[in-house]
Amino acid sequence: MASQKIVGVMGKGNLATSREIDQAYELGRLIGENGWILLTGGRNVGVMNAASEGAKSVGGLTIGILPGKDKTGVSQAVDIAIVTDVGNGRNNINVLSSDVIIACGIGAGTLSEIALALKNNRQVILLTTDRVTIEFFTNLAPEQVFIVHQPQDAIALVKQFLENDDI
Amino acid sequence: MASQKIVGVMGKGNLATSREIDQAYELGRLIGENGWILLTGGRNVGVMNAASEGAKSVGGLTIGILPGKDKTGVSQAVDIAIVTDVGNGRNNINVLSSDVIIACGIGAGTLSEIALALKNNRQVILLTTDRVTIEFFTNLAPEQVFIVHQPQDAIALVKQFLENDDI
Amino acid sequence: MASQKIVGVMGKGNLATSREIDQAYELGRLIGENGWILLTGGRNVGVMNAASEGAKSVGGLTIGILPGKDKTGVSQAVDIAIVTDVGNGRNNINVLSSDVIIACGIGAGTLSEIALALKNNRQVILLTTDRVTIEFFTNLAPEQVFIVHQPQDAIALVKQFLENDDI
Amino acid sequence: MASQKIVGVMGKGNLATSREIDQAYELGRLIGENGWILLTGGRNVGVMNAASEGAKSVGGLTIGILPGKDKTGVSQAVDIAIVTDVGNGRNNINVLSSDVIIACGIGAGTLSEIALALKNNRQVILLTTDRVTIEFFTNLAPEQVFIVHQPQDAIALVKQFLENDDI
Repeated sequence: MASQKIVGVMGKGNLATSREIDQAYELGRLIGENGWILLTGGRNVGVMNAASEGAKSVGGLTIGILPGKDKTGVSQAVDIAIVTDVGNGRNNINVLSSDVIIACGIGAGTLSEIALALKNNRQVILLTTDRVTIEFFTNLAPEQVFIVHQPQDAIALVKQFLENDDI
Repeated sequence: MASQKIVGVMGKGNLATSREIDQAYELGRLIGENGWILLTGGRNVGVMNAASEGAKSVGGLTIGILPGKDKTGVSQAVDIAIVTDVGNGRNNINVLSSDVIIACGIGAGTLSEIALALKNNRQVILLTTDRVTIEFFTNLAPEQVFIVHQPQDAIALVKQFLENDDI
Repeated sequence: MASQKIVGVMGKGNLATSREIDQAYELGRLIGENGWILLTGGRNVGVMNAASEGAKSVGGLTIGILPGKDKTGVSQAVDIAIVTDVGNGRNNINVLSSDVIIACGIGAGTLSEIALALKNNRQVILLTTDRVTIEFFTNLAPEQVFIVHQPQDAIALVKQFLENDDI
Repeated sequence: MASQKIVGVMGKGNLATSREIDQAYELGRLIGENGWILLTGGRNVGVMNAASEGAKSVGGLTIGILPGKDKTGVSQAVDIAIVTDVGNGRNNINVLSSDVIIACGIGAGTLSEIALALKNNRQVILLTTDRVTIEFFTNLAPEQVFIVHQPQDAIALVKQFLENDDI
């Protein structure tokens, strides 16, 4: 057998909005239902935590890529904690380890993950309705960033990418 | 639930001896039987590959922490591939992410993993019968390096460490 | 004595425009004239290379933080090559090691550097005239991103930041 | 011009013996006198600090590769601080960035640096008189580890390696 399919969900930590939290939970739930592994930044806050809880609510498997040198602050909904001690450099590991990457809203950390994905010639599904953000990425990388408005639209794209062996 | 227990098995790649390969397979098998997750350096050679195959032979879950920027060279017995692109710096991630660390023989890479484990105040179970290696580590770090001669002795120590919450 | 002041200049590699190359050379020259150390991503292309050549044209000292495992592709205008083998993860080292960060135009890599700077609570001087880029960062991080149109304006801000011990 | 020659000196931090401190200072002094750049782990303790002070005593240039996310704890004798935020993973950067590597005594961190150097197919000059350490490395990597007893012997080897373009 080969390695299993991993879908990464990136987004804000402490600054996540309640709408982003809801969407992240729904993304995690749908990822778990589809039998994919969920990968996040692993901390017990914001989008990371909500997506992991969503995946666990349906019995999915969750990986958390932690920035520090131990498991301090890991989400209780993370099954497998990878302890990197590379600080924000772990954002590059997040994107490289995900077969498909979903950004759920935009903060500084998420922006670095989208940018690192693009730099590594990867595609990103970006869940946002913000006009300025959409215009910015449409200008910067129209063939690599796919804008969606709802979690189920993101999941539909994930299916399409995985079927195309888009890894 | 909290994150699951991970046992790391480190050892030589291309230069592994047939004895080390056999012991690594047995370590992986016993780790899988005990319901722990196996973590290795993920490549399709040597101790990494044999331990992963051993774990899969009994239905265990296997993680591979890869040094490169994609999954090239990943062992077919790795379920979850973490792509780090930090080269040999991934050896630090190997030891930090393992609740218990077993070194199956000694090469340059394994030596770096043992040393990084010690530097991070972690304990290491070292499977070796080499007199010089034993004397070296007994001098360097007698309270952190535990010498064993057989895979089953290593596993007995893992049980003891995990029961003591030695993480 | 304490460590010397380092000004980082980030920008596109192979895809840099001739205008960006000219501006990078001018930035490097002004950084060298001011007695600051120049830090770049170290490769022999684009903004990195031009800024390093500009600094050397006036006898400045240049550091290059390389992504690979050896000095392959290093700019001939780099005095001190730091070999990281952390791939694009070196972008985090670029921003953390710079007392002041200047982004000369925007590509995927530069975008990751700006984002990582913001995530690390650092300020960035962004040399651009692109309306969409300006609007995006004005929305995202108005207190951390400073837009300028000319190299000399960037250097004026660097002086101001260093005088304020803004490190 | 091409990048300047960098000699790395590795050794214990807080646990360094007074003899190791003296030898590190002398190594730094000789490296500075020879016009090479000194690279260390950058902290204000032990071998790192003493070597940097030795190099500065003769006007040498010193680089410190720091493990944390800012300059906290940097040696006052470091001219150029590289801030990596990769924890002990910075030990791999230390060895990759040094044209020649000298280990001044052995601790867990230094052992990881020697091991990572060997893993990266690099040579190491090891300053020690400890019989067990000498026997261990003579067994493990006789063609890559060069044992010396005095700082001046280490420097003689550095000259030989640099003349051979042994990089």
